[in-house]
Amino acid sequence: MDLGISGKWALVCGASKGLGAGCAQALVREGVNVLINARGSEVLALAATDLRAFGADATRAGGSKWSQPTVLAVAADITTAEGRAAVFSAAGGPGHDFDIVVTNAGGPPTGDFRTWERETWIKAVDANMLTPIELIRATVDGMAARGFGRIVNITSSAVKAPIDILGLSNGARSGLTGFVAGVARSPLARHGVTINNLLPGRFDTDRLATTLMATAEKMGTTLDAVRKAQVASIPAGRFGRAQEFGAICAFLCSVHAGYMTGQNMLADGGVYPGTF
Amino acid sequence: MDLGISGKWALVCGASKGLGAGCAQALVREGVNVLINARGSEVLALAATDLRAFGADATRAGGSKWSQPTVLAVAADITTAEGRAAVFSAAGGPGHDFDIVVTNAGGPPTGDFRTWERETWIKAVDANMLTPIELIRATVDGMAARGFGRIVNITSSAVKAPIDILGLSNGARSGLTGFVAGVARSPLARHGVTINNLLPGRFDTDRLATTLMATAEKMGTTLDAVRKAQVASIPAGRFGRAQEFGAICAFLCSVHAGYMTGQNMLADGGVYPGTF
Amino acid sequence: MDLGISGKWALVCGASKGLGAGCAQALVREGVNVLINARGSEVLALAATDLRAFGADATRAGGSKWSQPTVLAVAADITTAEGRAAVFSAAGGPGHDFDIVVTNAGGPPTGDFRTWERETWIKAVDANMLTPIELIRATVDGMAARGFGRIVNITSSAVKAPIDILGLSNGARSGLTGFVAGVARSPLARHGVTINNLLPGRFDTDRLATTLMATAEKMGTTLDAVRKAQVASIPAGRFGRAQEFGAICAFLCSVHAGYMTGQNMLADGGVYPGTF
Amino acid sequence: MDLGISGKWALVCGASKGLGAGCAQALVREGVNVLINARGSEVLALAATDLRAFGADATRAGGSKWSQPTVLAVAADITTAEGRAAVFSAAGGPGHDFDIVVTNAGGPPTGDFRTWERETWIKAVDANMLTPIELIRATVDGMAARGFGRIVNITSSAVKAPIDILGLSNGARSGLTGFVAGVARSPLARHGVTINNLLPGRFDTDRLATTLMATAEKMGTTLDAVRKAQVASIPAGRFGRAQEFGAICAFLCSVHAGYMTGQNMLADGGVYPGTF
Repeated sequence: MDLGISGKWALVCGASKGLGAGCAQALVREGVNVLINARGSEVLALAATDLRAFGADATRAGGSKWSQPTVLAVAADITTAEGRAAVFSAAGGPGHDFDIVVTNAGGPPTGDFRTWERETWIKAVDANMLTPIELIRATVDGMAARGFGRIVNITSSAVKAPIDILGLSNGARSGLTGFVAGVARSPLARHGVTINNLLPGRFDTDRLATTLMATAEKMGTTLDAVRKAQVASIPAGRFGRAQEFGAICAFLCSVHAGYMTGQNMLADGGVYPGTF
Repeated sequence: MDLGISGKWALVCGASKGLGAGCAQALVREGVNVLINARGSEVLALAATDLRAFGADATRAGGSKWSQPTVLAVAADITTAEGRAAVFSAAGGPGHDFDIVVTNAGGPPTGDFRTWERETWIKAVDANMLTPIELIRATVDGMAARGFGRIVNITSSAVKAPIDILGLSNGARSGLTGFVAGVARSPLARHGVTINNLLPGRFDTDRLATTLMATAEKMGTTLDAVRKAQVASIPAGRFGRAQEFGAICAFLCSVHAGYMTGQNMLADGGVYPGTF
Repeated sequence: MDLGISGKWALVCGASKGLGAGCAQALVREGVNVLINARGSEVLALAATDLRAFGADATRAGGSKWSQPTVLAVAADITTAEGRAAVFSAAGGPGHDFDIVVTNAGGPPTGDFRTWERETWIKAVDANMLTPIELIRATVDGMAARGFGRIVNITSSAVKAPIDILGLSNGARSGLTGFVAGVARSPLARHGVTINNLLPGRFDTDRLATTLMATAEKMGTTLDAVRKAQVASIPAGRFGRAQEFGAICAFLCSVHAGYMTGQNMLADGGVYPGTF
Repeated sequence: MDLGISGKWALVCGASKGLGAGCAQALVREGVNVLINARGSEVLALAATDLRAFGADATRAGGSKWSQPTVLAVAADITTAEGRAAVFSAAGGPGHDFDIVVTNAGGPPTGDFRTWERETWIKAVDANMLTPIELIRATVDGMAARGFGRIVNITSSAVKAPIDILGLSNGARSGLTGFVAGVARSPLARHGVTINNLLPGRFDTDRLATTLMATAEKMGTTLDAVRKAQVASIPAGRFGRAQEFGAICAFLCSVHAGYMTGQNMLADGGVYPGTF
């Protein structure tokens, strides 16, 4: 399927590994130029190298229907104004003229809401709610002027089924979700701009590995036992793969998904039990 | 129906008029002691006078099954730590030992998200998300220890169907909603504490009157024309009344609603079109 | 709280015990005349006797603000045209002029969808979808003409979170839910008629006892062990009580709930994990 | 993007035109063998001819990575046991061994629920609920045995936001939706079988044209005026195209969508206003 987005420019945040990297790879495979962002420059540089190889392969495999996509890497903290400025002024990049923006930030820490002071909340709100909103604000009018745009916010299945210890994430990400539902249906929609959220359940990433390890230690059991128990609770019988997550993201960014906006796409192997 | 809450203590925010006042009245009518809060002391004092009269009437009508409820008024900005301290240390009040807390804050201004800087967002988040969370944090453990508690957050139908110009409200109130969904199902639930949200559609309050007036001026038409047009779009064919809203709130606070928690109760005359 | 419905006529189906009986009791306590229906005449007669006693008590306790409610019992299969005809032509009853209708039918059997032939499905659809629709059809125009009406359909929490073995129930009850969402917002709403669904989670009824017993036998364990395990999975830490369910139903039937329509009210002690 | 499904067998119902045809085309373009079904043999034969041409083009364009897909056409009423038998015994087809099944039935007529007798309801339930369930029943165990399967039910945006006059559709399609939510999370999920629903809003099909024409006649206005008014109410500012709908369907059928199950994917240009 030709996604019709080769030659477009995408910003992908949190792209050095995990789900963000999966999204960047899927886009590069479709000939999309990407600017990847994360805080740590070393891992990000490695990710960029990988992406360039993927891009070269895909270009060859695609019979050179498109030229090899550009891959830029900007190591910066996207949750700060300075970080965003760095991304939007990167040499060789499109400035603010991204056609695709994939927002993605690591979740805030788990914990007990009794211990969260205002600054803890504000930090979560900044990272998981206001940063995506700032990225949307910085790019959607340009997208609308050019008649095409795709925002994909990577949130979490916890937006649909929050759990106690993830209160900071539940709160901040739900805040983003509420905002998106309004703006996605605003006059921007008339100009080819879609804004959707993509909600991962449990995916096999470094982050998950860390969580599983912590759980195993806490429960005095083995990593393998924890993995098995978790997998058993997923109807699909497995964790998700970053690559398939990336493919869903790329599809949402395609020309074919232009009639889908304001949606919350859940990829969780059937864990969330609700009909809607 | 005996709601089984006479003699309990309730904190009702934004209670000088409108929906908050409706909630306070409904609770006082059931013999609940209330501490009402709002920023302006004069209007709040008038509201307190009214409530005392309601309380006396209800006590008589109830055949003096309960003693006349106490009504305290604390004028303070509940969105500040100082305001909350004033409420929780009011002379004659229960300290932190409220059995019922009705959180309620005026919505943030409407507008275009392109013009909202970080401080605008933080203000909305403080008022409509973090303040209720602080009030919950300050009271639920006491409720759990005593084996009974009711939190009712007055949010908005815009949580279910956000609209563009209410982005600040959509965002902040959805953030609260996401948090509540998690904490409502936490171990607090086992101790008789329920946490629910109550979502008003369009109710016939001063606030609505102001909005309608502004709309009429903007559109160069009469207040009456605007009212008629709006009413025509409501399946129930009318605006809601603060009194019926208060009754729903009181019911949610009753002993009978102890098996309902984490719910979003919508009272909008059928406007929201979704099945769920 | 005066629900404002004394002297109204209610039809309550499946009212010989369990949730239906809880609803009938709560209504009678508010001075509502009820016609109760179930298939078995003996148990139904006992229920009617109980209700009359409740009615007498409530009338005395209410200071004789209202006259003692009438209680009629019609043993019939409400899922058949004949059964409905019997209900609507009962001597001493209101004919079709019920002000309140509580639809309620036992759920279809559990099982594997692979074994369900068309007639099994049609039976479930008849009982849990078309029967309520027929009862709505038979009564709402009269309600609208008189300017007041309340339909409450007792469905199931499985409408929000279906489970595999309850496929017949999931399907038929969801069908009802979809239909109700449309008709509740139809012009009927303008005439004081509300149509809502009430979704029970696990309530402490005979039906639950039977289910628990079957589970215990199947798993080769004790009833008590099964009860404890189930209770542990409910955030509220207990099963619901028919009496509190009845109170919610009565509130939905009250004058105060006139601005709530098309809603799915879930009472499940926090089991369903979804935000909405 | 390689969807990874070339050489699979798909059954697509209602495939002679409109959304069903869009789905069949998108699948054939990915090298999927299709058996298309509809009632009228002539239009279906034309559709098959078109599909064969698409298949040949796609095979060439794909650098012959896959062999040209087979296209079979079976004119039959899929809502009958005979129709289904014809489909599952078609010469050259896979028998029951479809890897992909796209269920799709024209919606039942609009109308007033007061006029719908039982047989009208049963007809709608048969077409829009029990037929998809029968197709699921006939194919999913084989899919599970082979470790891969995709069911996509084309339902309607009216499942999320029902409207009065579509009561038959609301009811029957919601019934299907409730059933699907349970079975999608059943042990089938562990064997690579996903079951999702795809909810179209207003798409530019023959059916829409007929509806618009009827509306224009009824309102005494022009087709163009009706089109413009409807388009103005869609945030995306246009009707959807069958081709993009087909692409979404094909993506859901791809190997990449294996972690999405039990979902209701809405493609409506932003009309449905709900956050979820």
